[in-house]
Amino acid sequence: MTISVAYLGPVGTNAETAAIQYINWLKNQTGEDSLLCPYPTISQGISAAISEVDFAVVPVENSIEGSVTVTLDSLWRLDSLRIQYALVLPIQHALITNAKTLAEIKTVYSHPQALSQCQEWLDKHTPSVQIIPSNSTSEALKYLEGDDSAAAIASPRAAQLYHIPILAHPINDYPDNYTRFWVLSQKDHDQDRRDRTHTSLAFSVPANVPGALVKPLEIFASRGINLSRIESRPTKRSLGDYVFFIDIEADATQPEVEVALKELENHTETLKILGSYRVLPL
Amino acid sequence: MTISVAYLGPVGTNAETAAIQYINWLKNQTGEDSLLCPYPTISQGISAAISEVDFAVVPVENSIEGSVTVTLDSLWRLDSLRIQYALVLPIQHALITNAKTLAEIKTVYSHPQALSQCQEWLDKHTPSVQIIPSNSTSEALKYLEGDDSAAAIASPRAAQLYHIPILAHPINDYPDNYTRFWVLSQKDHDQDRRDRTHTSLAFSVPANVPGALVKPLEIFASRGINLSRIESRPTKRSLGDYVFFIDIEADATQPEVEVALKELENHTETLKILGSYRVLPL
Repeated sequence: MTISVAYLGPVGTNAETAAIQYINWLKNQTGEDSLLCPYPTISQGISAAISEVDFAVVPVENSIEGSVTVTLDSLWRLDSLRIQYALVLPIQHALITNAKTLAEIKTVYSHPQALSQCQEWLDKHTPSVQIIPSNSTSEALKYLEGDDSAAAIASPRAAQLYHIPILAHPINDYPDNYTRFWVLSQKDHDQDRRDRTHTSLAFSVPANVPGALVKPLEIFASRGINLSRIESRPTKRSLGDYVFFIDIEADATQPEVEVALKELENHTETLKILGSYRVLPL
Repeated sequence: MTISVAYLGPVGTNAETAAIQYINWLKNQTGEDSLLCPYPTISQGISAAISEVDFAVVPVENSIEGSVTVTLDSLWRLDSLRIQYALVLPIQHALITNAKTLAEIKTVYSHPQALSQCQEWLDKHTPSVQIIPSNSTSEALKYLEGDDSAAAIASPRAAQLYHIPILAHPINDYPDNYTRFWVLSQKDHDQDRRDRTHTSLAFSVPANVPGALVKPLEIFASRGINLSRIESRPTKRSLGDYVFFIDIEADATQPEVEVALKELENHTETLKILGSYRVLPL
């Protein structure tokens, strides 16, 4: 049986690199072959995991730019997807162009996250260029065709795949640039509960934030369950009304975690367990 | 003396509407005249408030799309700016185009926040168009020149200013769409401490999040000081290392708040008070 895996395309994105890491790992573990399916937006890739494909590999968080909010909002909205695995990818950005010198460049295209991650470099080396956002890093490369005054920010791998020269690399402002990805699917694929080191959950609290957020955090802290992340997102009902996303360092089926989650139900309005999972080695 | 006010331009953006509300209020209060100064990006507008202009009016948070992360990251990085006032603006998006029918439209341009806020409408009414991000809603309008198959998402006011017809309005997916703006400046402009109902602060905690975040929240909760918002942002040092932004419903000079902030210093690595301010009436 061939496994189908959705990712933010086209070919050459960091999301594709993450998806390739995942299917290689899967092949090693199970011998199963996979088919990579590019989608033009992250949200279309996530929706595909409900109707068209077996898995979606999606970015969740970058160490410089923070949360990928469309991923969090989609998981809150859709009830049927669970996080199966996490993986963390080092990110390097290259300035890809047919121009021979930086002075020739008039426009720079890339995904808004990549543009932000190279903003200081761009301010310093190409202060007067026009910055134009694109839907993905690889999509930016299509604007270079026939225009030697245009440059794109994408991975060195994308430059190879599209046969366009790299003029500068790496150009990311912070060397420690990592993106965390989640592998999502409807079915619980991994029956092995060993090494499920993380559980992600999301909840809304009644009325405003005040003490309402302290109690949920105390429930975990008092049991020595480590929180590795907390993120707030709007509920989209009114300004000041939030959903909280929390990652804890434990499997949801551990007895003390089960008790904590049961108690958490009493202090939240809506509580969704997004999945317990392990972090795949790269 | 003429006061200069930076905002995300060009003319016709929601940020400009917020800036106009601010200078009208200022004129009423002090009789001072103001000059509006458009900047091509939010971050350039914020930097201008340090060197070139008196104030910057910047978006902080939208009720649908959440935080404007560049604003939070800039305030954390720059030490010299303080929040002077907040104001909340209702947001309506219009589909602006020279096309006579939806079927004629092939591309839709807008700022990524506006595109996200109208995503369901676009999926339903223009499922096969190409979506292209721009630096601001008003900037999207320049792509319509000479191209009747292009549309932009911007405010009804922008349609008037640029003399381009509105084909559909409102097209935002959620009617309760509001954006909160902050007025930033280097000097404490408002000497009147009455009605300073909010204080915003940002802090990093030693090592990882776990109990480290519980204590800061407890400091406020135990004193009955209401938290109206919490947001996490990466420190950009390493994945999993965060700065927390908190809004409390109190003036930092109130005695019990002063004590709380003093105690907070002992439980944070770096603590920055971004300002105490009032919310301007619209």
